[in-house]
Amino acid sequence: MVEARVRVIYGDTDQMGVVYYANYFRYFELARSEYFRARGGSYRELEREGRFLPVVEASCSYKGSARYDDLLLIRTQVSELRRASLTFEYELRRQSEEKILCTGKTVHACVGRDGKLVRIPERIAEMLQASAPRA
Amino acid sequence: MVEARVRVIYGDTDQMGVVYYANYFRYFELARSEYFRARGGSYRELEREGRFLPVVEASCSYKGSARYDDLLLIRTQVSELRRASLTFEYELRRQSEEKILCTGKTVHACVGRDGKLVRIPERIAEMLQASAPRA
Amino acid sequence: MVEARVRVIYGDTDQMGVVYYANYFRYFELARSEYFRARGGSYRELEREGRFLPVVEASCSYKGSARYDDLLLIRTQVSELRRASLTFEYELRRQSEEKILCTGKTVHACVGRDGKLVRIPERIAEMLQASAPRA
Amino acid sequence: MVEARVRVIYGDTDQMGVVYYANYFRYFELARSEYFRARGGSYRELEREGRFLPVVEASCSYKGSARYDDLLLIRTQVSELRRASLTFEYELRRQSEEKILCTGKTVHACVGRDGKLVRIPERIAEMLQASAPRA
Repeated sequence: MVEARVRVIYGDTDQMGVVYYANYFRYFELARSEYFRARGGSYRELEREGRFLPVVEASCSYKGSARYDDLLLIRTQVSELRRASLTFEYELRRQSEEKILCTGKTVHACVGRDGKLVRIPERIAEMLQASAPRA
Repeated sequence: MVEARVRVIYGDTDQMGVVYYANYFRYFELARSEYFRARGGSYRELEREGRFLPVVEASCSYKGSARYDDLLLIRTQVSELRRASLTFEYELRRQSEEKILCTGKTVHACVGRDGKLVRIPERIAEMLQASAPRA
Repeated sequence: MVEARVRVIYGDTDQMGVVYYANYFRYFELARSEYFRARGGSYRELEREGRFLPVVEASCSYKGSARYDDLLLIRTQVSELRRASLTFEYELRRQSEEKILCTGKTVHACVGRDGKLVRIPERIAEMLQASAPRA
Repeated sequence: MVEARVRVIYGDTDQMGVVYYANYFRYFELARSEYFRARGGSYRELEREGRFLPVVEASCSYKGSARYDDLLLIRTQVSELRRASLTFEYELRRQSEEKILCTGKTVHACVGRDGKLVRIPERIAEMLQASAPRA
């Protein structure tokens, strides 16, 4: 489990005074990027090696509202690791509170420069598998 | 079923050269706003009456990629209409092609100004129910 | 002068209940893309030919506020056309009102694939020069 | 002078592989929010007191490109402090490099809940004036 922090800016909110629903997916992206970094890698490097992890499915369940200037904490884990795909799960809350504001999930395919499915590189799989058994 | 159109701008794309995954949820919002308009109402009016439809669940399944300058067509329908919640479903494709690029779903609660669940106003339910039987 | 239209979505607003200041620059981008289209070209084609027009300066002066669900009208013109740069100017208002909500300006360099300054292709210059004398 | 840091996410980039021009204004907003915090206040508190600082002018001059995963450093100062308006200036670069990627400026009016111009509260003016003489 890796934790990332993000401060809500005005531009993330909408006229309801809360974070716009689509913007949580931006936070999730930040969180999985930090996940790679925390494990000693980086998604940028992966791309330089010609491996990409486009999102094939994304979902979010909203239970509460994040607001302007909140310092958010996002807990991220790899819940499934397959040959050519993996799943991240996210829990988001205010740093100062235990209450979960939303949970999310993104499923990623591993593809090469040509967009075709490829096996997740062994080094990456090992880096990630501390948190999830490989199928 | 209601159709909405949107032109992909540069700002919607990311460095993979395709629309960033979170931005499809912006398109879905545009589409459900057009859904209300096509049915003779508007979400803005609903809000003026003190009724709000915050998203409680959102999901998207990505099958292909929209690109800069694409003219997208989003087909929207109400797939479920309950006492105090409703579900929109979306299909997005290029106007010029049949291939579906992604499908999505958003579930909305109906709440009052105090954030508490309230029955969907009868007039709104009738407006929407041409496309979905009320539970 | 070319006119573009855009509908304000929830995701464009912020907690002040108005369009977030940065998002007007997204509208300006949409407007200059429509400018190309109205002149019989497209910025996408220009890019395919290896010519790009990155923004080197951008500014906006805010006089009023656009709100959710407003149908906005953006009037765009090329106010200056130089050998390797050009300037777009924008006026934005609600379609239903004369009052200008904001005015903006973007200055663009013309560069090749290597990022180096190049002359604006003659065909593009001609396409644009109906509205601005070439320096 | 106050420094803020922000990590570029995928969602901030566009298909040119660099940060989309409008998104620098999001970074500027983050930076001025951190400016308030570094001075012992917060913009959120100011709003709770019924004072708002909407942007009336914004500009950015782009000299280089920020890219995905860059850790950016934004230096912010109040360059002008008037009775009912103030000006922030920004310099943005990669944390690891001296080269400035862009400079920006935002001018803000001080208004009350009714949107009318009001004097900047003395406490706020004092908080800010360490960095700028009051006109």
